[in-house]
Amino acid sequence: MNTPMLHAPIRLGMVGGGSGAFIGAVHRIAARLDGEFQLVAGALSSTPEKARASAQALGIARSYDDFAAMARAEARRRDGIEAVAIVTPNHMHAEPAITFLKRGIHVICDKPLTATLAEARKLAKVAGRSDALFILTHNYTGYPMVRQARAMVAAGDLGALRLVQVEYAQEWLTEAAEKHGSKQAEWRTDPARSGAGGATGDIGTHAYNLACFVSGLTPEALAADLSSFVPGRALDDNAHVLLRFAGGARGMLWASQVAPGNENGLRLRLYGEKGGLEWAQEDPNRLWFTPFGEPRRLVTRNGAGAGPEAARVSRIPPGHPEGYLEAFANIYAEAARAIRARRTGEAPPAGTIYPTLADGLAGMRFVEACVRSSQRNAAWVTL
Amino acid sequence: MNTPMLHAPIRLGMVGGGSGAFIGAVHRIAARLDGEFQLVAGALSSTPEKARASAQALGIARSYDDFAAMARAEARRRDGIEAVAIVTPNHMHAEPAITFLKRGIHVICDKPLTATLAEARKLAKVAGRSDALFILTHNYTGYPMVRQARAMVAAGDLGALRLVQVEYAQEWLTEAAEKHGSKQAEWRTDPARSGAGGATGDIGTHAYNLACFVSGLTPEALAADLSSFVPGRALDDNAHVLLRFAGGARGMLWASQVAPGNENGLRLRLYGEKGGLEWAQEDPNRLWFTPFGEPRRLVTRNGAGAGPEAARVSRIPPGHPEGYLEAFANIYAEAARAIRARRTGEAPPAGTIYPTLADGLAGMRFVEACVRSSQRNAAWVTL
Amino acid sequence: MNTPMLHAPIRLGMVGGGSGAFIGAVHRIAARLDGEFQLVAGALSSTPEKARASAQALGIARSYDDFAAMARAEARRRDGIEAVAIVTPNHMHAEPAITFLKRGIHVICDKPLTATLAEARKLAKVAGRSDALFILTHNYTGYPMVRQARAMVAAGDLGALRLVQVEYAQEWLTEAAEKHGSKQAEWRTDPARSGAGGATGDIGTHAYNLACFVSGLTPEALAADLSSFVPGRALDDNAHVLLRFAGGARGMLWASQVAPGNENGLRLRLYGEKGGLEWAQEDPNRLWFTPFGEPRRLVTRNGAGAGPEAARVSRIPPGHPEGYLEAFANIYAEAARAIRARRTGEAPPAGTIYPTLADGLAGMRFVEACVRSSQRNAAWVTL
Amino acid sequence: MNTPMLHAPIRLGMVGGGSGAFIGAVHRIAARLDGEFQLVAGALSSTPEKARASAQALGIARSYDDFAAMARAEARRRDGIEAVAIVTPNHMHAEPAITFLKRGIHVICDKPLTATLAEARKLAKVAGRSDALFILTHNYTGYPMVRQARAMVAAGDLGALRLVQVEYAQEWLTEAAEKHGSKQAEWRTDPARSGAGGATGDIGTHAYNLACFVSGLTPEALAADLSSFVPGRALDDNAHVLLRFAGGARGMLWASQVAPGNENGLRLRLYGEKGGLEWAQEDPNRLWFTPFGEPRRLVTRNGAGAGPEAARVSRIPPGHPEGYLEAFANIYAEAARAIRARRTGEAPPAGTIYPTLADGLAGMRFVEACVRSSQRNAAWVTL
Repeated sequence: MNTPMLHAPIRLGMVGGGSGAFIGAVHRIAARLDGEFQLVAGALSSTPEKARASAQALGIARSYDDFAAMARAEARRRDGIEAVAIVTPNHMHAEPAITFLKRGIHVICDKPLTATLAEARKLAKVAGRSDALFILTHNYTGYPMVRQARAMVAAGDLGALRLVQVEYAQEWLTEAAEKHGSKQAEWRTDPARSGAGGATGDIGTHAYNLACFVSGLTPEALAADLSSFVPGRALDDNAHVLLRFAGGARGMLWASQVAPGNENGLRLRLYGEKGGLEWAQEDPNRLWFTPFGEPRRLVTRNGAGAGPEAARVSRIPPGHPEGYLEAFANIYAEAARAIRARRTGEAPPAGTIYPTLADGLAGMRFVEACVRSSQRNAAWVTL
Repeated sequence: MNTPMLHAPIRLGMVGGGSGAFIGAVHRIAARLDGEFQLVAGALSSTPEKARASAQALGIARSYDDFAAMARAEARRRDGIEAVAIVTPNHMHAEPAITFLKRGIHVICDKPLTATLAEARKLAKVAGRSDALFILTHNYTGYPMVRQARAMVAAGDLGALRLVQVEYAQEWLTEAAEKHGSKQAEWRTDPARSGAGGATGDIGTHAYNLACFVSGLTPEALAADLSSFVPGRALDDNAHVLLRFAGGARGMLWASQVAPGNENGLRLRLYGEKGGLEWAQEDPNRLWFTPFGEPRRLVTRNGAGAGPEAARVSRIPPGHPEGYLEAFANIYAEAARAIRARRTGEAPPAGTIYPTLADGLAGMRFVEACVRSSQRNAAWVTL
Repeated sequence: MNTPMLHAPIRLGMVGGGSGAFIGAVHRIAARLDGEFQLVAGALSSTPEKARASAQALGIARSYDDFAAMARAEARRRDGIEAVAIVTPNHMHAEPAITFLKRGIHVICDKPLTATLAEARKLAKVAGRSDALFILTHNYTGYPMVRQARAMVAAGDLGALRLVQVEYAQEWLTEAAEKHGSKQAEWRTDPARSGAGGATGDIGTHAYNLACFVSGLTPEALAADLSSFVPGRALDDNAHVLLRFAGGARGMLWASQVAPGNENGLRLRLYGEKGGLEWAQEDPNRLWFTPFGEPRRLVTRNGAGAGPEAARVSRIPPGHPEGYLEAFANIYAEAARAIRARRTGEAPPAGTIYPTLADGLAGMRFVEACVRSSQRNAAWVTL
Repeated sequence: MNTPMLHAPIRLGMVGGGSGAFIGAVHRIAARLDGEFQLVAGALSSTPEKARASAQALGIARSYDDFAAMARAEARRRDGIEAVAIVTPNHMHAEPAITFLKRGIHVICDKPLTATLAEARKLAKVAGRSDALFILTHNYTGYPMVRQARAMVAAGDLGALRLVQVEYAQEWLTEAAEKHGSKQAEWRTDPARSGAGGATGDIGTHAYNLACFVSGLTPEALAADLSSFVPGRALDDNAHVLLRFAGGARGMLWASQVAPGNENGLRLRLYGEKGGLEWAQEDPNRLWFTPFGEPRRLVTRNGAGAGPEAARVSRIPPGHPEGYLEAFANIYAEAARAIRARRTGEAPPAGTIYPTLADGLAGMRFVEACVRSSQRNAAWVTL
């Protein structure tokens, strides 16, 4: 790779994310929000015409017919991309990721890591040998109050943790949307494209990642009862999971896509010997903190009681809500800090955190364990 | 028993509930609130002096040294008690209940039914042979919006049910209150007085009963992971339970007494093919109802959208909150309807509902199954 | 009056409150809830037949055709009533209140005090010469967290107060219910029965009383803009009021009966140099307290942060909601403490607080001032 | 001006917004979020050195020592700026706005319009003669659910409006922050820089604009009671305002910067003959809608019940919160649509809405009327 100016935006490519895709647009906004990236190349669709049309509509300078061509060509350019965002369905993560990592191009990849654990392990090997960074967009870890919660747990504000209650409830697959034209529903309920987990992979991995990120705990075993409530659905649309962590904490994880009244109900509750914390994605600027024996406190982003870990990934004063896109952008901002540090060979600034391949592997092991446990009638499976 | 005037208050006795007891005072207010009962006799404590002092302080006409004496004497009086409230710790439910039932005196008994399943079965046999009624104060079924929810499920507003998520979270046993003078904590953490279930018996039975009452579903099996987080505690203070119901619905039940920030967080969420419902005890006058594909609706007690099942157990207009005591009083009001009907041999008014011995037995089976499952590493146990 | 036993229930009579009346039933429950009163006599309706039928249905021993007859007869009995609850429409408060006070019988009277300020002043004179007590049921002052708020303000937790924002929003008169058979709406929109204030008198007085009770401030002047939005309505159904208090604090009061989406939205917010407080009647067990520069705290009834002023008017643990009836019953419980003290000539227990004739007069002056100000185009009127 | 490519980003300049300024950073993110603008020139500070340093830090290509120089130079360039964002304190709005408008450069200006009504009128004259657009960033009108509310009112969902209750409550000026180093506080409490209104100008204008935008009503008169609670503060820090609208609707507006516990509590409630609406900035993705006589409904951004007016200014699915920056970016997105249309002389796409100079003038008249009314002891002042 060629040496860019220190303060110039990071040149970014994108694989997937052509017109009609939801998550591609989110990545583009996230990349743009802080001005740290410039999207200059894309292989936006496996259909070349659609790829070109999408690139033109988005004002992307260089359009490629496929990701391999993009990797080759960009690696050769003096002004080639420094990083690539991979926003394809799950089964199309590993191959492009491996390709770009081998070329030394940093990868920012949507979750879950891959469709299968085997792919994930293969990718992990390549990543381990590459100098390029791998950033997984477990975007909920970018919320300032999630950072705040993590910092409070780490500081011992809750004492030793006992309980981890996490849930991610949605309603959108209550009916068979995959049979009525929803492309989002189609690939997410298709084992060939999503892998072995349905709700488990799509949102269960988010819940699992969030719980681990904030609690700092290491899961040891789980027991999972997966269901496919909608007739004809090949993958689970509901997951009931019991968790056991190293050190004795226990937990429950509920992921559902058939819970009417829930849009994106990701919610985490942690309880320890000294206190409790509660956070919900649909009201993300607030964190409930209860020191045992004292009144519940509402800690707000950048408000009284919030600390530097939240402030460093926050842009505006308290009471002005930040949301999903800002949190997603924080993953990109952290990635930018790490990538800029790589330009000069320095360490990223203190406090730089982003989800890595290890998190992705953990998520894949979680999905695989859920499926295996459920097949064994919810027997305990070690993680 | 002697024949009372039709409209005269029902003469009530009480076993337990001497000074310092929490639940005895609740029963007395509940009995008094609608003017349907008059508390005229009591064996308020196993310590005769305390029994007498408590009776005098409460203005109860006839005080007895023990419940057996009360049963004998009252059964002989023309103006003897028609019903008795049993508000002792769990291990002291069965014996008095049996004694009064044998005398033909109706029993209103606090939950859980007994301390052991064996006692429960013995009690059930006696009750089955008695003409007297047995009412169990699973008080949360008395909330108007719980009745509303039950009616909506029964009317098919949610379609076939898929998911039952229920929880009862408290914080008060986060530390070892039983070692520091809390009488409430002492007996609730003592297997000799509470039975085999800690949180499971004390609040898990409430959550379980509520879920069954509203959903109308029959549980078939459960898998439970019980914990005693506080060192030295003999009974569980946290229960993580997976549920499977006849017909295919599945559920999660969480009961905890070590969750700081939760006072009496009993919360039920039901999801079906056509919609969802959510209710929380700490905000009991509201019920969230989402017909799938429409905006969430907030149905309020006596407000638009609420029906006769709620209205018949409600006293005041919408927006004026009714609470725990009114819900508890509704159990007494329903009991009064049934008892008055017995005076004349008629059927109680349509819609009269109260928790019975069958509910109590189900609760005991639930506790027993939780303990058994947990001992087998959360294996499935049929109910 | 005759001398009753010290611990016997207080013998109570009732004027108004026959079948169909809302507030009469509330008073009866409130009187009964703590077992401090026994309702033994009534002149429940101005229609003698209805009065008799209502008394019989309610099991009230002695029914009278009119309140004057009741006052005469009861005053002569050894076991005559010690107190009377007056629950008639506003224009029928003064005459019976005067009659009973002259007989030395304590009066518990619904609000607002009277229909006119002239009546109120006449009543005040009689009350001033009577040994009997006068208790006005400004029931919201009975909520534990309202007591808590008052105590915190008095203790200086907010510093010197600057702002008083109070509102009472309802929806029930959005349409002309008074023309379609609602008896509650009929008299409340009838100047002959309600007096000069509509929403102002019915709920504005509650808001005003609550604001003064909690803040401890003395209003000096107000400017009011009253509206009658529903065509043909003779009294105001919406009141916008600016307030100025002695010492420089200022406020806003909004009372409305035409605000769809609001059931009984009574809400008080107080802000001072050091902090803020917020309380809402529809969620009455919680009080938001913000010490300036610290996180908001949720103080709960009987929970951490709540003090003895709330605990003394509370019956059950935190997290079990108490509501409107309990708060109303607290007014009766306070009245009972004061009446029992009168039996022996002692002072009531420390902390006994109830709304008095002075509060009633203040309310009437508030209504009169609102009407006068509004007639002068919202000019300032001194209070 | 020179002719740009149709799809190329709009070249933007900025006046003010150097390092340390809050609102400048917000404008930059808003401009960048949808990729419609490219910030290429700036006069970021009145201190040339600071201007240069800020421009360099932000990667802005062309830095100018003052806005007049920027206007001159950019107007001459083929690739000069097409629009300028003015983000200085209030007293520095009019002069640059006039300068750029005269050069035919579109102006995107922060609110309130100016410091004085006289300046505002002068600016209005110039704008009236210019072909360039003037967009005022009353950013709250960019929230999707604010658009939704406006559309519902316009569609008659509430019937004829009766009541407008609006408030904007903050806490940050509870103490004299302006004396302790807060630059934000300094200029906002300085009449020379802010004009005659303190809270009135800074946040009262937002509340007023929001109320007018959503209700579609024309205010006719107001009565205002302004206060400066913090000793030594020259401008109001609290405003209590009564409103009267053409057609008979009435309202209350409360703006405060001394209300502890409130961060950015902008809240609008509208009530009409047929229903009510409630919206709060701190929970912006939800809109409460109550058709009179039906349950309250929670309409969510992009969820069931929300329409195209919200969807067109929204980026992500329901349940993923959008916030302040997205709403602000919507003003820029609307501006971009209008500016692009100007490039070709076409009309902007249907539904394009942004706050204009007329809104700014209305805001200035509001501030002036508040001050005048308050000086006359809250007498009514026509608008």
